[in-house]
Amino acid sequence: MKVDGENYRSIWLSEDGWSVDIIDQTKLPHEFVIAKLTTVEEAADAISAMLVRGAPLIGATAAYGLCLGLREDASDERIEILSDLLIETRPTAVNLRWAIRDMQELLKPLPLAERVAAAYENAARICDEDVAINSSIGDHGLKIIEDIWQLKMQKGVVNILTHCNAGWLATVDWGTALSPIYKAHNKGIPVHVWVDETRPRNQGAHLTAWELGMHGVEHTLIVDNAGGHLMQHGQVDLCITGTDRTTASGDVCNKIGTYLKALAAKDNNVPFYVALPSPTIDWEIDDGVADIPIEIRNSREIDFVSGSDPTGKVVEVRILPASSSSKNYAFDVTPAHLVTGLITERGVCSASKKGLANLFRN
Amino acid sequence: MKVDGENYRSIWLSEDGWSVDIIDQTKLPHEFVIAKLTTVEEAADAISAMLVRGAPLIGATAAYGLCLGLREDASDERIEILSDLLIETRPTAVNLRWAIRDMQELLKPLPLAERVAAAYENAARICDEDVAINSSIGDHGLKIIEDIWQLKMQKGVVNILTHCNAGWLATVDWGTALSPIYKAHNKGIPVHVWVDETRPRNQGAHLTAWELGMHGVEHTLIVDNAGGHLMQHGQVDLCITGTDRTTASGDVCNKIGTYLKALAAKDNNVPFYVALPSPTIDWEIDDGVADIPIEIRNSREIDFVSGSDPTGKVVEVRILPASSSSKNYAFDVTPAHLVTGLITERGVCSASKKGLANLFRN
Repeated sequence: MKVDGENYRSIWLSEDGWSVDIIDQTKLPHEFVIAKLTTVEEAADAISAMLVRGAPLIGATAAYGLCLGLREDASDERIEILSDLLIETRPTAVNLRWAIRDMQELLKPLPLAERVAAAYENAARICDEDVAINSSIGDHGLKIIEDIWQLKMQKGVVNILTHCNAGWLATVDWGTALSPIYKAHNKGIPVHVWVDETRPRNQGAHLTAWELGMHGVEHTLIVDNAGGHLMQHGQVDLCITGTDRTTASGDVCNKIGTYLKALAAKDNNVPFYVALPSPTIDWEIDDGVADIPIEIRNSREIDFVSGSDPTGKVVEVRILPASSSSKNYAFDVTPAHLVTGLITERGVCSASKKGLANLFRN
Repeated sequence: MKVDGENYRSIWLSEDGWSVDIIDQTKLPHEFVIAKLTTVEEAADAISAMLVRGAPLIGATAAYGLCLGLREDASDERIEILSDLLIETRPTAVNLRWAIRDMQELLKPLPLAERVAAAYENAARICDEDVAINSSIGDHGLKIIEDIWQLKMQKGVVNILTHCNAGWLATVDWGTALSPIYKAHNKGIPVHVWVDETRPRNQGAHLTAWELGMHGVEHTLIVDNAGGHLMQHGQVDLCITGTDRTTASGDVCNKIGTYLKALAAKDNNVPFYVALPSPTIDWEIDDGVADIPIEIRNSREIDFVSGSDPTGKVVEVRILPASSSSKNYAFDVTPAHLVTGLITERGVCSASKKGLANLFRN
């Protein structure tokens, strides 16, 4: 997607043909900084310090990290050591493990001399596949937006509410929840996005608002508290969010607060869609509320808010009295009956065992 | 309620017998500063700069402001000038107008020489009446907490979720939503409060957490996004919030985000109570969603977050990219059917025309 008029991905091979460039997302939205990765250690640091985040982008960064680490020594032993190093950066990231396993399976049967070139080729393929999946999600979601635009007699704008950041910054390009929005915008449908700021980490304010603004999509930041009021007053035509994990029966585990927006959507007959690449479906679990463990993250994320101070320097301020403490639940589960549909790379289906099985029968 | 072991109200006559002390709430939670009001101008500034906030406290401050202003000249003309000055500080504050009118009606028939003493006496009465109303709300709400404590077989704690600040800092003492909680705590019932931080102004993080902590009530700050997840997992026994305006049919207009919590409470069979002094009932309006205009406040409240920086200085940081803007809806309306009951100074009733009429028939 566009930044200052130029097309970017969130990760790409540098012009030198071997080093890897990423956008340092910890600096957003106040600075746009491109960081260069030249060693596997730098790639691992970029993942663990969250210069890159979002499951697909973490996987892509790990794949390129392996390339960087194999340039001097591509032995089986080295592959194992580097794989462990990269997996340890975010032990619970499924895409990361998947990307590393994919690289291993490809590389180990090859002669030593061919491994580095093959690794780079495969890392590029992993990136391109992610872009293709997300583009496909966008095409399927676009139809939903087009239908609403027709229902509105092509008058006004299509107002879409989103929570957290499921945009191109979380993937290699396009994003998941934002992909249909970019497709609609690019096609000339007037869309306006209500961006939940998404406390505690403010990914909406820091990332979603930034990427929509840079691509030229109309948007307005709101506090996480405001969506229900907007829906009561007909100011939301559609909600689209991403998901970290979707159960076989269509329950959706996503950023904390998603469930509250889904309740408001149901109460006000606003369609609530969730966009996802199929690898994030967990076919082993049915009941998301009962069976998905919810990560409790460091309270510091609640207690401190980061932003730019009057001199333009990015600082953290503490909002909580010293005598109080907080608890930081990172995700919640939206039961399938609140979800209008799931937007996948294969099409849109109902959030149900049957709907998912129909699309992914094989 | 208690601060560092000592009992405080939010406003009181100073020991000198004429000046008025308040807590500078703009400094909370990072500093506890008592400000002295010696002139009507200082009182007016305290209201407009929000050193005091909360409808009842604003009314009490205006009443005392009038006392301060009349000390040198208590003529009818002066009463009019001062009244206008005070009303202009927060033109939409109903309690403020009511307090000023009450003072005027009392003072104007009196001989000049008696007016100042009568004014001070009446301001003290306004304060005491507010304390009595809130204490009564607390007694009625206490029964709800006691019942839950019995249902839990007196095991564990009673977990109560609240939104925004409807505590003693918003009133003269006790508060509304927090009054039953203080009563329960004082009686030895183990309560634990989930405090919504309440973006954008963070009254939960800044004020509710502080006052609960100072009084010794167990509490945990959560982001506004988290309440639904907690209710899904049985970690909330009861919600209590305040309200700025309640319609004759029991719709509740309160801080933005209240509606989302009420939806989650309904979805999880968690009782959702709203505490209010009866003067905030608007008998002229039935349909709150349709007929209560929602204030859109300065976007700055969203774009900037205030807190203490690493050196302990309170600063504001901007969280939004320069290329984005926000919209700041201050309140939302929770329809009566989501409200389990209204806790008033006369008792608890259903959130309905009939329920309210039964309690306030005269």
